[in-house]
Amino acid sequence: MTDQHANPTRETPITGDEVRAPSHAERTRTLVARGTTGALSTLDPQGYPHGSYVTFALIDANPVLLISKLATHTQHLLRDPRASLLVHESGAADPLANGRVTLIGPCEKAPDGGAAREAFLAVHPGAAYYAGFADFAFYLLKVTSVRYIGGYGRMSWVEASDLHAASPDPLAAHAGGIIEHMNDDHAEALAGYARAFTRADGAESAVMTGIDRYGFEMTVKTPAGARPARIAFANEVTTPNEARAALVALVKEGREKITGARA
Amino acid sequence: MTDQHANPTRETPITGDEVRAPSHAERTRTLVARGTTGALSTLDPQGYPHGSYVTFALIDANPVLLISKLATHTQHLLRDPRASLLVHESGAADPLANGRVTLIGPCEKAPDGGAAREAFLAVHPGAAYYAGFADFAFYLLKVTSVRYIGGYGRMSWVEASDLHAASPDPLAAHAGGIIEHMNDDHAEALAGYARAFTRADGAESAVMTGIDRYGFEMTVKTPAGARPARIAFANEVTTPNEARAALVALVKEGREKITGARA
Repeated sequence: MTDQHANPTRETPITGDEVRAPSHAERTRTLVARGTTGALSTLDPQGYPHGSYVTFALIDANPVLLISKLATHTQHLLRDPRASLLVHESGAADPLANGRVTLIGPCEKAPDGGAAREAFLAVHPGAAYYAGFADFAFYLLKVTSVRYIGGYGRMSWVEASDLHAASPDPLAAHAGGIIEHMNDDHAEALAGYARAFTRADGAESAVMTGIDRYGFEMTVKTPAGARPARIAFANEVTTPNEARAALVALVKEGREKITGARA
Repeated sequence: MTDQHANPTRETPITGDEVRAPSHAERTRTLVARGTTGALSTLDPQGYPHGSYVTFALIDANPVLLISKLATHTQHLLRDPRASLLVHESGAADPLANGRVTLIGPCEKAPDGGAAREAFLAVHPGAAYYAGFADFAFYLLKVTSVRYIGGYGRMSWVEASDLHAASPDPLAAHAGGIIEHMNDDHAEALAGYARAFTRADGAESAVMTGIDRYGFEMTVKTPAGARPARIAFANEVTTPNEARAALVALVKEGREKITGARA
């Protein structure tokens, strides 16, 4: 046994965040970094909150918009800069299982149009043709407050300073591909992880449901029903290759652990 | 030639709404009838507009929500009922080409919980298990004002009375399938429509991009570039079978028209 086996965070099935997992600030930062569209809420002249659909990019964790002063939301912001931007994931069969974030703060004409332009056009190159129109301008929403909802029962207010200090998960863009590959081609490895590293009794099989820099999540099939489990990597991974190496190492480690337990 | 050929609304290529087309109230009604999730905007205690992700159903054109009084947005509504619900389509490669609607009005506990419950659970049957929880209640947003944006350059304020009077397009649920079928299997028919019924000179081919009770839309390839076109049905259609019959009839009519023109 190596000292890794002694790490209790590696061997705990979870329903919450018992093993090392992204913080809510990191989850928020990752979610908004992956988003390109959102719902902007502004105040109309009657004081009603008004939602509109926008494209956005980020400078650090602050959303940048490219909007026309002819548009309703821009008229609202010119009158009162108070705003929020809702960004949500999609893909979960149950919509309320999707993660979402509300970034709250004043939204005003970007003080540095050059930086805003560069950030926005990097994400939305097709906007270049109207970025120069006289009625269009870049707006920056300076996040002062953050509401995070990660699905059922996973929610909190995130400190804006924590959001700004967090970095997006480096695996986020690759997670879908890794999960598909593991579930399609490595069912035996997944079942092995469940048997070696979780307390799910009589694990029959497992399906990977998520992966991030700190570990991965599975739904484990047992005689008593489906159980969620999270398994942490020994070290933070930052690339798909490092994730692959960590997953391969865990297969070996799991075999040795089970063989050791039988001996 | 039949008298249908004399109908100028059948033979006009469009960039706007020159031939019979759904009104903005009808487009809005159709869009919200197809939606099941949206962005609810509420007012937080500091007066900031706060966007949150919600599931909804409709009573007429008024959104019904099932929300917990423990949730942030519910706390906001209990303090100030002013709200709006943004519903958007997805699917267009350019996100700003997607249609979206903002339904604005006060959002309060549904006066008739029974009707709200029935409407909501019909769309979200999975919510039945928490619909009875003591902290959950049905809320009704009574639409008093409507902002419609159908994509680039197609937008207006819709009268709430017009929205309530409009019916959802009966083909909406089938449009995707019809469009796919026509583009996959009836390219020749589409090119024929373009040649017979539009002013797109030298139409080489056409791709169907939309269909509704009043007609259909295509992008026509010509030597001078792509041209949008809308062709109206002789009569309003209400089912996929009626749409099929109308499309078949137009193939014949187009052939006769072109043969007649050559004779």
